[in-house]
Amino acid sequence: MRLRVDLLPAADPQGVVVLVDTLRTCTVAPILFDNGLTSLALTPRLKLARRFATETGAVLLGERAGLPPEGFNHGNSPAELRGVRFDGRAAVMVSQNAPTALARLGAVDRLLLGSLYNAEALVERVLELEPETVTLVCSGFDGQEDLDDALTAGFLAARLRQRRPEARYDGAARLAVGLLRAFPDPVEALWDSAAGRYLRGLELGDDLAVAGMVAQSGVVPELRERVERDEGQLFHFTPAAR
Amino acid sequence: MRLRVDLLPAADPQGVVVLVDTLRTCTVAPILFDNGLTSLALTPRLKLARRFATETGAVLLGERAGLPPEGFNHGNSPAELRGVRFDGRAAVMVSQNAPTALARLGAVDRLLLGSLYNAEALVERVLELEPETVTLVCSGFDGQEDLDDALTAGFLAARLRQRRPEARYDGAARLAVGLLRAFPDPVEALWDSAAGRYLRGLELGDDLAVAGMVAQSGVVPELRERVERDEGQLFHFTPAAR
Repeated sequence: MRLRVDLLPAADPQGVVVLVDTLRTCTVAPILFDNGLTSLALTPRLKLARRFATETGAVLLGERAGLPPEGFNHGNSPAELRGVRFDGRAAVMVSQNAPTALARLGAVDRLLLGSLYNAEALVERVLELEPETVTLVCSGFDGQEDLDDALTAGFLAARLRQRRPEARYDGAARLAVGLLRAFPDPVEALWDSAAGRYLRGLELGDDLAVAGMVAQSGVVPELRERVERDEGQLFHFTPAAR
Repeated sequence: MRLRVDLLPAADPQGVVVLVDTLRTCTVAPILFDNGLTSLALTPRLKLARRFATETGAVLLGERAGLPPEGFNHGNSPAELRGVRFDGRAAVMVSQNAPTALARLGAVDRLLLGSLYNAEALVERVLELEPETVTLVCSGFDGQEDLDDALTAGFLAARLRQRRPEARYDGAARLAVGLLRAFPDPVEALWDSAAGRYLRGLELGDDLAVAGMVAQSGVVPELRERVERDEGQLFHFTPAAR
């Protein structure tokens, strides 16, 4: 098995792709499914999200500049959303880094959402697929590499290699795994990341604490469909079969 | 001052640009100037290098697959080249990662070559220029991010910030500086990098030891001219004025 890391999204990643967006989309998504959500559509477009919610009755989640836009049911805060039930509902969520990354990747056979929060379930799911290559794609922050996603990619790569010691790292995977030694407590890396500083500036420090929790969720969101509409793309996720 | 890091070369980097290629071009270049070289032309093209050497009498240095091609005076080995004098001579050197990065960057006002080996001189030179923005560009290895250059960029960023505590890191700079905590001894990061593994496979481990030495040279190579020729580009360097 080859373990690759892209520190920023690049077109046509190889093999099974794990999209990492620790702060906050890939931490929030497993929480939503844990709390009863049945499907999640991601988009970077407010207008598209509003229209989709009106058409389908989906719960409207998301952020602009870190906070929920007017008329939205909730923001993107994992600390807040851990306490909200969504039994039997679908949701559409507006965020920037993860949907922008998804648009960048192009067509991918199999795409999973990964974070520290669902790390162990993600590792199990990837190993079940017996891939020749796994590419861990960091969403980054505002178009740049960032510490939170790089550390999470390193964490996931290291766990995969513990389970498959013959797996080979590429250079970026070595770099990401190296970060683990610098940050034995992942929260510290989230704290120091550009995304983390941004959220702390919005007094959303509690989200960093939740995003730094390891293996809390058994859910691995998997991409089922990408829909092109006039206003932009929608990426539809449901939990991977267990 | 803004301290940016590009973990791979991207077009149009901002401000004063420091190209980092720890293994091996940016370690070798200061060594050559320390040993009396007057100017250095870099190119990825063997044929162009041979022609330039024939036309100008330049010493012919370089590698293909890590080793000196037939008819070349020397390879790219810093361990070897530390013992060779070049008094009053010019050289042309074939390598892959650094010239490929230079071609990628496009036009840049001021470009310096940086490594651990000339770290302190490089920091002094950058500070003399009083830039608003410094972009540390990692050459990477074979088109991918790698641990050796990321660590070196982190080392240089941290030294610059020690001297200008008000400087602001971007996300990739935070990531690179984070690596320093994981690798208090830089040689260990070089050892574990994809480039380092490649060189060790060619029994060039001594080059890693030299490239891991900090602040051995007072020379900062600066880009003076890029020349387009039919066979490719030549990038001409001389030492920055002290």
